[in-house]
Amino acid sequence: MTAPVDGPPVDLRSDTVTRPDARMREAMARAEVGDDVLDGDPTMRALEAKVAGLLGTEAALWVPSGSMGNLIALFVHLERGDRFLAPDRAHILDMELGTAAWLAGGVPRPLPWTAGPGVPSPSDISRNVTRGGSCFALRDRLLCLENTHNAAGGAVTAPEQHRRLTDTAHDAGLTVHLDGARLWNAAVALGVRPAELAAGADTVQVCLSKGLGAPVGSVLAGDAEFVREARRVRKMLGGGVRQGGVLAAAGLVALERVDRLAIDHEHARLLAAGLAERGWKAGTPQTNIVMVPVDDPSGTVEVLAERGVLAVPLAAAVRLVTHGDVTRRDILRAVGAFPSAG
Amino acid sequence: MTAPVDGPPVDLRSDTVTRPDARMREAMARAEVGDDVLDGDPTMRALEAKVAGLLGTEAALWVPSGSMGNLIALFVHLERGDRFLAPDRAHILDMELGTAAWLAGGVPRPLPWTAGPGVPSPSDISRNVTRGGSCFALRDRLLCLENTHNAAGGAVTAPEQHRRLTDTAHDAGLTVHLDGARLWNAAVALGVRPAELAAGADTVQVCLSKGLGAPVGSVLAGDAEFVREARRVRKMLGGGVRQGGVLAAAGLVALERVDRLAIDHEHARLLAAGLAERGWKAGTPQTNIVMVPVDDPSGTVEVLAERGVLAVPLAAAVRLVTHGDVTRRDILRAVGAFPSAG
Amino acid sequence: MTAPVDGPPVDLRSDTVTRPDARMREAMARAEVGDDVLDGDPTMRALEAKVAGLLGTEAALWVPSGSMGNLIALFVHLERGDRFLAPDRAHILDMELGTAAWLAGGVPRPLPWTAGPGVPSPSDISRNVTRGGSCFALRDRLLCLENTHNAAGGAVTAPEQHRRLTDTAHDAGLTVHLDGARLWNAAVALGVRPAELAAGADTVQVCLSKGLGAPVGSVLAGDAEFVREARRVRKMLGGGVRQGGVLAAAGLVALERVDRLAIDHEHARLLAAGLAERGWKAGTPQTNIVMVPVDDPSGTVEVLAERGVLAVPLAAAVRLVTHGDVTRRDILRAVGAFPSAG
Amino acid sequence: MTAPVDGPPVDLRSDTVTRPDARMREAMARAEVGDDVLDGDPTMRALEAKVAGLLGTEAALWVPSGSMGNLIALFVHLERGDRFLAPDRAHILDMELGTAAWLAGGVPRPLPWTAGPGVPSPSDISRNVTRGGSCFALRDRLLCLENTHNAAGGAVTAPEQHRRLTDTAHDAGLTVHLDGARLWNAAVALGVRPAELAAGADTVQVCLSKGLGAPVGSVLAGDAEFVREARRVRKMLGGGVRQGGVLAAAGLVALERVDRLAIDHEHARLLAAGLAERGWKAGTPQTNIVMVPVDDPSGTVEVLAERGVLAVPLAAAVRLVTHGDVTRRDILRAVGAFPSAG
Repeated sequence: MTAPVDGPPVDLRSDTVTRPDARMREAMARAEVGDDVLDGDPTMRALEAKVAGLLGTEAALWVPSGSMGNLIALFVHLERGDRFLAPDRAHILDMELGTAAWLAGGVPRPLPWTAGPGVPSPSDISRNVTRGGSCFALRDRLLCLENTHNAAGGAVTAPEQHRRLTDTAHDAGLTVHLDGARLWNAAVALGVRPAELAAGADTVQVCLSKGLGAPVGSVLAGDAEFVREARRVRKMLGGGVRQGGVLAAAGLVALERVDRLAIDHEHARLLAAGLAERGWKAGTPQTNIVMVPVDDPSGTVEVLAERGVLAVPLAAAVRLVTHGDVTRRDILRAVGAFPSAG
Repeated sequence: MTAPVDGPPVDLRSDTVTRPDARMREAMARAEVGDDVLDGDPTMRALEAKVAGLLGTEAALWVPSGSMGNLIALFVHLERGDRFLAPDRAHILDMELGTAAWLAGGVPRPLPWTAGPGVPSPSDISRNVTRGGSCFALRDRLLCLENTHNAAGGAVTAPEQHRRLTDTAHDAGLTVHLDGARLWNAAVALGVRPAELAAGADTVQVCLSKGLGAPVGSVLAGDAEFVREARRVRKMLGGGVRQGGVLAAAGLVALERVDRLAIDHEHARLLAAGLAERGWKAGTPQTNIVMVPVDDPSGTVEVLAERGVLAVPLAAAVRLVTHGDVTRRDILRAVGAFPSAG
Repeated sequence: MTAPVDGPPVDLRSDTVTRPDARMREAMARAEVGDDVLDGDPTMRALEAKVAGLLGTEAALWVPSGSMGNLIALFVHLERGDRFLAPDRAHILDMELGTAAWLAGGVPRPLPWTAGPGVPSPSDISRNVTRGGSCFALRDRLLCLENTHNAAGGAVTAPEQHRRLTDTAHDAGLTVHLDGARLWNAAVALGVRPAELAAGADTVQVCLSKGLGAPVGSVLAGDAEFVREARRVRKMLGGGVRQGGVLAAAGLVALERVDRLAIDHEHARLLAAGLAERGWKAGTPQTNIVMVPVDDPSGTVEVLAERGVLAVPLAAAVRLVTHGDVTRRDILRAVGAFPSAG
Repeated sequence: MTAPVDGPPVDLRSDTVTRPDARMREAMARAEVGDDVLDGDPTMRALEAKVAGLLGTEAALWVPSGSMGNLIALFVHLERGDRFLAPDRAHILDMELGTAAWLAGGVPRPLPWTAGPGVPSPSDISRNVTRGGSCFALRDRLLCLENTHNAAGGAVTAPEQHRRLTDTAHDAGLTVHLDGARLWNAAVALGVRPAELAAGADTVQVCLSKGLGAPVGSVLAGDAEFVREARRVRKMLGGGVRQGGVLAAAGLVALERVDRLAIDHEHARLLAAGLAERGWKAGTPQTNIVMVPVDDPSGTVEVLAERGVLAVPLAAAVRLVTHGDVTRRDILRAVGAFPSAG
């Protein structure tokens, strides 16, 4: 057994654990605010305009969480009796407590990863859309993509792939929502602007927490009419807040940090390489998520925790996520904490 | 082109098209009735007791349709935030307008047909059930089986297969609902009593229309507490009726006709064999459904209709269903209406 | 104490207890039928056309129950976040298990009985409709009337009253649904055609069971587009049936019996007069419902049952309903079963 | 006409417009934080413990808004087919977009204000609870009180009144939820501890924004099991946040400001007295809300806005709310902005 570790654990459970830094905190302390439910908070408005600009959409709306952003989008897009398609194991399918189904009203249809990890092919879409069905059939209404795809190990969808999918979906009469909780990571990994990855989607959700490090909040973007309706649904769900400008101020700082994600990606590759040397098949991470297939994910996570490294079990793997509060030294410590592979 | 056909078309769209015969009509005309919402209708009670007996359950409840029976069962079994497993392309997944999801509250998880057409393997169940997940995970709660499986071409699940699945589900903490809309066909095809195919399921839905020929109605069976709750949900959905005994009387006659289904199965094999001779790959039907893979299902259905044979397109096939209003001669006519394959 | 009564009890619990008579049974036995889900059942179509004609609407749809008819109408008319107005104690508010709220999505706003028992005034509507509210306010969308109003003792709304209410509602941008479960009684009591009482309502639900004596079924009427959407919702809820023509045939016979309701009304007045002589304040019934205010409704109902008369407690009264299976002699027996008032 | 005003308007639309002060901002900037979804944020935990202590409950949970707090409570307490009682015009009835109905599943039953503005009497509860109803009746399950009652002009319910209501509700088998968005105001006005006003309620929601001035957030309190279930529902709705400690830190400062509300109450009385001198019937405000009945609420609000005073129309009145960002001089300006009555 290894000796007990000193100091706080290396927390690789998620990039959501990142804490706001001094500049964000200062921005929060100085934020100009208003009542965002009544008439708009100026810093909220600035953040929403900024994100709309980055994504190339007409408008945007702050939401307390990525889950709420996805839920609101699907609530607006779907009616009860509709069906939506999403790549198998998408966050919206497995990790949002089924709200897409029982609250937004859509029956999910998982699509295989034909075109790459987390990425269906255009023909997966066409094959699964029922056209001209009887009036009693489910109405195929929406395609929900996820870039990067979390459960596929932070896999990216390239712009041309993405566009083929959104074009196919639109040709089939579907609306497209993009769960871009980690779209920033995809953009940095691919060396493209976020707008290139958002193009073709009717609505997009992006997170300000996760890799960008803001404490709270996501943004839901789309056209002005969608955002107007989304505001109403946000209020319904209790997601409208008052002086949210304090959070938006941190979000604006976070948006200046996008380039920093390259370091997280490098750390992820370093981690995967180190594990490969110890016999683990961690692949080559495309962004900041490392999936290590293991026989007993929960057991392995427990062992790692004893050794001061926090991770989560996900299906048949241990998931490790790099982020801004992780150093190169932490990565080495994480590699060392892993038992040797079978 | 063939000459236009005389007489009414051969209707193979579904066994739901069967019309009540003289004995059923007479039974309806003579039925002793009461107000089934207020205090029970004696013929309804007799029907419910009869079906409970046939399925080996404690109690049963008449419902206007199989879809409502399935919906009520899932409404009782599930809460919002739960997940249920069902073999891919189950009726409850694709043909009930998503009510299992948006109304009963469960997120569907389709299982592959590992153990045969329409039949998952026990390990498909174990693999897909999340145990000890975080309190934020979907709660796996229910397995929904379908015997015979409609979209799998009326495929049967044998008693021992069925029991392995229900045992695995129960071990994993799941409730089991059986969509037995055509359970009678499975029983006849396997030469077993319906109760052997219902054993292990907590609740079962069986149809009196379809192959048995009653005009309206299905029955939902389970223990007394389940049926009490199901009555309340039936009332909620507007499925409680008044002098339903007129329909129950027809149902009681229908239940005497179960053995007659053997003829439908023979007709289905005859139809498949005839089509095979003409170059179509219709397989060997296990019960009363023949699936003919074709390139253009909707187009083929149109051609057949012009030739006096009615069928429905289902995914990449034409589906033909035999039933009590179909004669041997109708089968031959259906074979003749098919264009030559290839 | 009175001596125990011989023979079956006089059942005044509801007019839903009426049993189909010989002519209805014969019509059921002879009905021409088809698959009403797939392509329409000819007798269903005839019934639907007949009711549309009687109510002056473009189209109509058979439904298994009045509750389902109301639910479907509200599901089509309302979205989640809408509000609907209805006279206080309307059936849709108190007796349909809240489906108007949790399933159709509307928040109810009960209106007072300003213009008569069960009848609000036009200004009750205007006062309760929020115009030009913020985008976060409930959207007032629907007025639901009930004629006759069950809990108001079968009280009628006269055509001119009805039209003032529907005009006010339409001016305020509301759709109007009429729960006409006992509209036939209102028409007979007022000596007008049913269409005069339906005019102004966008959609209407009428029952074939209750006073008309059909065993099962109601009809939902409106324009063709509404009925098309209603068919889809009926299928969702599991209310689509197969050879429903057997029930529709009984319904067609029932529709010939409307004038017979005058006898029920006379019986109700006879009952109320008899009770008045014994000191009870039963008022003068407008149709077939007699409400007798008592101190202990449940206790009184128990006493009556012991004496061979069945009734139901409703709020602070005992409700007695006359119908086709009740004779003048039954009425006298019911009067005699009441204990003396005071 | 008065001359156009200089400077920013006096904003009396709601106490939600208050902006965080320097101490709150500093606390936010220094807050110790963690991932509140994964394992708890220490400042969140401190805030939740503090509020539980103040309210005398076992546990508590931060939520992004009072509306979400109420929604979560009702979602946990109610099932579809249940009914809940609330004083007429309660926030949960009119101002939360019907989520109590269509999402939590409960049918509302408004209670009259028999015992005072916004306060029903115990007999209003007993009279409206159906006991031993048929299994098809709505199940009365919950009483939702509101203290102070917003639409009743910030009216308070005294502890003894409150306890008689909660005792009656419990005797009738109801759970009690208290919408205490402005419970702090009630406590200050009555000179009692908040726990005295929470006692008897099973769950309580209190706001940190509004009069206390925190930028974002409310707290939902109850026993540990309720809070565990509420956390799950919060996640479902997308209300779980990451480093919420920044907001909780402001909340902790806000909780030190409760006594300050006495100034708002004094300002409200000053405002009402000033308006009374000008002929308006503004009554004597019990807390920080002044309701001025006017003929044309929207028109009056427009006039006031032109004169630099912001208010909102509410039913047949103009509502003005005092708060921490309002000075005595602002109050005098508001009085002056009102046109003369009559």
